[in-house]
Amino acid sequence: MIKKSDRAYGVNASTQTVETEMVEEGMREKRGIEKDFEVPIIIENVTPEIDGGIFAAKSVVGDPFIVEADIFRDGYSVIAASLKYRKKNEEGWQEVPMKHYENDRWRGVLIPTDNTLYLYTLEAWADHLTSWFRFMEKKCPANSNVSGDLAEGLQLIEKAETQAKGKDLKKISHFKNLLELSDGGSDEVLRIIQNEDFREAVLKYPVKDKLSSYGKELPLFVDRKRAEFGAWYEMFPRSQGKSKSKSGTFKDCIRRLPDIKKMGFDVIYLPPIHPIGTTFRKGKNNSLEADKDSPGSPWAIGNKEGGHKAVHPELGTLEDFEDFVQAAREYEMEIALDLAYQCSPDHPYVKEHPEWFYRLPDGTIRYAENPPKKYQDIYPIDFYSEDHEALWEELRSIVFFWIAKGVRIFRVDNPHTKPLRFWKWLIDTVQEKYPDVLFLAEAFTRPKVMKYLAKAGFSQSYTYFTWRNQKWDLRQYLQELTMTEIRHYFRPNFFANTPDILHEYLQKGGRPAFKVRLVLAATLSGNYGIYSGYELCENKPIKEGSEEYLNSEKYEIRVRDWNQPGNIIDYIARINRIRAENPALQKHLNLEFFQSENEQILCYGKKTPDNSNVIVVVVNLDPFRPREDLVALPIWKFGIEEWQTYQAKDLITGDKYYWKGSHNYIRLDPEVEPAHILSLKK
Amino acid sequence: MIKKSDRAYGVNASTQTVETEMVEEGMREKRGIEKDFEVPIIIENVTPEIDGGIFAAKSVVGDPFIVEADIFRDGYSVIAASLKYRKKNEEGWQEVPMKHYENDRWRGVLIPTDNTLYLYTLEAWADHLTSWFRFMEKKCPANSNVSGDLAEGLQLIEKAETQAKGKDLKKISHFKNLLELSDGGSDEVLRIIQNEDFREAVLKYPVKDKLSSYGKELPLFVDRKRAEFGAWYEMFPRSQGKSKSKSGTFKDCIRRLPDIKKMGFDVIYLPPIHPIGTTFRKGKNNSLEADKDSPGSPWAIGNKEGGHKAVHPELGTLEDFEDFVQAAREYEMEIALDLAYQCSPDHPYVKEHPEWFYRLPDGTIRYAENPPKKYQDIYPIDFYSEDHEALWEELRSIVFFWIAKGVRIFRVDNPHTKPLRFWKWLIDTVQEKYPDVLFLAEAFTRPKVMKYLAKAGFSQSYTYFTWRNQKWDLRQYLQELTMTEIRHYFRPNFFANTPDILHEYLQKGGRPAFKVRLVLAATLSGNYGIYSGYELCENKPIKEGSEEYLNSEKYEIRVRDWNQPGNIIDYIARINRIRAENPALQKHLNLEFFQSENEQILCYGKKTPDNSNVIVVVVNLDPFRPREDLVALPIWKFGIEEWQTYQAKDLITGDKYYWKGSHNYIRLDPEVEPAHILSLKK
Repeated sequence: MIKKSDRAYGVNASTQTVETEMVEEGMREKRGIEKDFEVPIIIENVTPEIDGGIFAAKSVVGDPFIVEADIFRDGYSVIAASLKYRKKNEEGWQEVPMKHYENDRWRGVLIPTDNTLYLYTLEAWADHLTSWFRFMEKKCPANSNVSGDLAEGLQLIEKAETQAKGKDLKKISHFKNLLELSDGGSDEVLRIIQNEDFREAVLKYPVKDKLSSYGKELPLFVDRKRAEFGAWYEMFPRSQGKSKSKSGTFKDCIRRLPDIKKMGFDVIYLPPIHPIGTTFRKGKNNSLEADKDSPGSPWAIGNKEGGHKAVHPELGTLEDFEDFVQAAREYEMEIALDLAYQCSPDHPYVKEHPEWFYRLPDGTIRYAENPPKKYQDIYPIDFYSEDHEALWEELRSIVFFWIAKGVRIFRVDNPHTKPLRFWKWLIDTVQEKYPDVLFLAEAFTRPKVMKYLAKAGFSQSYTYFTWRNQKWDLRQYLQELTMTEIRHYFRPNFFANTPDILHEYLQKGGRPAFKVRLVLAATLSGNYGIYSGYELCENKPIKEGSEEYLNSEKYEIRVRDWNQPGNIIDYIARINRIRAENPALQKHLNLEFFQSENEQILCYGKKTPDNSNVIVVVVNLDPFRPREDLVALPIWKFGIEEWQTYQAKDLITGDKYYWKGSHNYIRLDPEVEPAHILSLKK
Repeated sequence: MIKKSDRAYGVNASTQTVETEMVEEGMREKRGIEKDFEVPIIIENVTPEIDGGIFAAKSVVGDPFIVEADIFRDGYSVIAASLKYRKKNEEGWQEVPMKHYENDRWRGVLIPTDNTLYLYTLEAWADHLTSWFRFMEKKCPANSNVSGDLAEGLQLIEKAETQAKGKDLKKISHFKNLLELSDGGSDEVLRIIQNEDFREAVLKYPVKDKLSSYGKELPLFVDRKRAEFGAWYEMFPRSQGKSKSKSGTFKDCIRRLPDIKKMGFDVIYLPPIHPIGTTFRKGKNNSLEADKDSPGSPWAIGNKEGGHKAVHPELGTLEDFEDFVQAAREYEMEIALDLAYQCSPDHPYVKEHPEWFYRLPDGTIRYAENPPKKYQDIYPIDFYSEDHEALWEELRSIVFFWIAKGVRIFRVDNPHTKPLRFWKWLIDTVQEKYPDVLFLAEAFTRPKVMKYLAKAGFSQSYTYFTWRNQKWDLRQYLQELTMTEIRHYFRPNFFANTPDILHEYLQKGGRPAFKVRLVLAATLSGNYGIYSGYELCENKPIKEGSEEYLNSEKYEIRVRDWNQPGNIIDYIARINRIRAENPALQKHLNLEFFQSENEQILCYGKKTPDNSNVIVVVVNLDPFRPREDLVALPIWKFGIEEWQTYQAKDLITGDKYYWKGSHNYIRLDPEVEPAHILSLKK
């Protein structure tokens, strides 16, 4: 007896030992007529398959989702394969054929239609009939009679016949009769099996009697389009009023909507809107002594007026907030809330659930501390506390609370300091009920932790973009995001600035630098954002060498003059309109870098698969000096021949250039326009 | 209640969902004292891990086996990890610490001592005590009293204390007392916790109370050394006699042993030694008409005198064969047999088990055929036949039969045309009983099929080496073998020629070409081989453009004059002696290519980890013209400084060069010596 291999390694390896077990199983199963046993065809190196299928690949509704695998078997007979998929909450698989394209690599494409969790898997089988056709096409010319082989083929044709119906059945039976009447005369046989009509009919009914399944059903989470395409605008509601000494309100925020809409943003993200603690409240510029009027940091959440489910009374009421959400919706914009799981010492949780915080052996609660720095205004939550079940439930109920108020996007503060598994559980269970909810991870930490958060379910992630300001590191970073495995699950959101990050490039480079970084963020990534003040080119750090803003809005109310000279509001509006009008710019995965010699000129492009929208972006990274270069475009990929003249229209200025060939001269003066966004047309 | 995530994807994903399940499990388990719950630490991207652990990584006895993984957790507290391993057939794990080396990547090394199957896995835990030490070292200098934090640390120290014994226990208790007496005075506390004696003692007892296991036990098959290092010599026993018209015998083979030993070979591989069929026997040069004296192809196995368990009577008896095996062993050489699972029409199986062959619907057995070519002298075996269980058993019994006769190495003919799972089953079950048995796969087919055979268990594989004759393709191919994932399971055996492959490079390049390819094969790979006649520089193809030998030994007896002028026997002996004397050359995975400008000069090196043996090889790939070049050696990796003079001794000629710096001039005249094998010494 052939026993199951003893090297069925791994205690828990039941997924994987399916391959080993098939040896035995295959031996027991009786399939087909001539042969009772066929080893399964090997299906391996499936992409995407994230960590063996525990994590979902990501896509968006309507986007072709490509699955590839190595599929092969012993010997030389022909095989066929298909990609199968279904929504997880529905029965019944749909199936699309896979095609071999090179070196035993196969590819199948499905187009998901719904914002939900899908499963996909693969199967392959021996295509005996095609094997037989190919064999006979070589054998017939070399032999006068092929009756032995014909008998074998007729058995295969009969199998197709039993499945066929209507016209196909008639055709198959007709040609089968002809073959039977041929008596194996090879000329006759060859003529019949080469009949296109016959081939088409009979191959419609593949006999999958040697079927091999991949064995795993892999998850694919299909988001709504906003997950990969959106322009974000971050603003502090309290700064939207008229006075530095009086908090703006949600009603003021509503008044701001037309301006934000005019700039072309899709998402308005608000820092925490909850009551702010008073104990150890931070003053202006993060000083330890807050004066009486200091409004405090919105991230010191909670006081006697409420916690994460309340709004700061100075901003208005919950109803006011809901009105704001509704008003934004009427402008086709969404509100994103901050999800910052931490408490001020005055948060109601501290009294009601001291067991949810870190406590020293003497029972006192420990504040956040990174010696010698102390953050006495913040109590971190102990996610591993004895009462964690109730704690986790309560934290999730905050999300459900705001969902009920109309919020569908959450920007999560510092997720990397909370358990990775907490996020997986939270996001899985929230999206199970509300698949349209999106989560953005604000994790500026080590790369593997950031990737893991994305695998665990975050729809989007903050990135290292703010610190990538040179040609080589922009290219390297974007190539990692778009060409390595993380492309399947990590979606970048390129913020050009945040309340915490004013990069030196912006501090020093002035207005041209703000335009450069805007164009890069908005055209390299489908998701990007700015924090308000960017449109005014605010660039004063608290001190030389720091990325903190001077008079940071985190600790005080800032009222701005939006018509201030030198603002780039119109420029932002133009860039966002270009994004909205050009589908090629609505994702990051179609990015390709093009060759340019000048170390300060970055050239890249994006296009739709059908070449109906071809965008080429050229940016002068040097905000101080004009730069020129010869850039090399792979025009053959755009369907343009070397001899053809084509139009390159600058969507920023409206200027039109008529080019021929792949190499073209570029000159960009940062004081005029630091970037081209070119639409190419034949 | 927190429920198990519903996105525990994948029907069979039990290995993998262990990560998801841990969320729930971790919540139930109560470990440790202060906190009852800790999420597991993430352990992922383990290398080697072949296809999720269904296939074994390969190593050899005594060779350090390196395991790496990404290991991290949320937040910033310190973690520790270990690599655990055991022989599969023994209980009880051994453990070595893993070390963090960069970017959340950890590394552990085990040294296997036995030729057997091992399992390995990883675990990690939160190292609270080290976290606490680091925290206190920052906190103490900034505060006068730290009693709150001290209390927390004392709890951790107590846990170590309960595990400690003897002197360690005394030490720990002593310092714990001092800490308690300090009353939290920060100078005092800092002084105590920085005491080296205390640290060393207390950290010896890590509290693994937040233990996270990888969950999978991964297989590692540890071969004997011969699996990665051996020089092979292929010869037809029937050609070892004195006459073209009379078969040589095993006794003649015994007489050849001193010469083969003198050349320095380790393994003598014999084409099939079984009775040869007479039906449709092939004649000289593969002609369809065999004359009366044609001995036939040894691969047309079986006639009325027996099949795969018999020896051809003209070679002698089974006892003669055993004598030959024994005689070779006395010369410290091994005999490798050919395992060719196919039959001549006269094989006893054909009569006894017609059901084991492919049959047409009329019941006749089908011969091998690739129209218009017919191989009527060969019946392929139908591995998927109804009676496959008995068939597979019988085929395996052939291996056991020859093992009983003293054979421990099998060269398997065309494994890629037999079921991949058959090989996994065969090799697993044979090596379970005889872990010292080696299998070499003779699969010249598509890359993924070749890789799969290696994963399935083949100890060594034939390669594309014969067709890699240029600098760029040798580099590319070797980099694939030594630097991609296949390094963990695919061991090359570089044959410079075979009875089927006489490459054009050898046909055209003459004696220098034979020397070049010998040096490449013997120094690039730990395993290499030649087919006899190579030492005489036999280079006549059957026709222009063919890789087949003229008057191929496959179809006739060839008797050679081993003292023929122009032979390279001494050269081969020298190269094999160099391999034997230099441990750096006894494997392929330590290969590194070095920079050289000339397109015909290939430069590479191998060294032992301790730099006690540093070998640099420089080869002129052009067999016709002298070539010169400046090669650049990374001498800093060899422990040599730029200013130091070092000796490069050519192990082929004995010449010594005294070099300084990394760049050195090389000139190689193929008519003199086409290659240097240099041993570098300070």
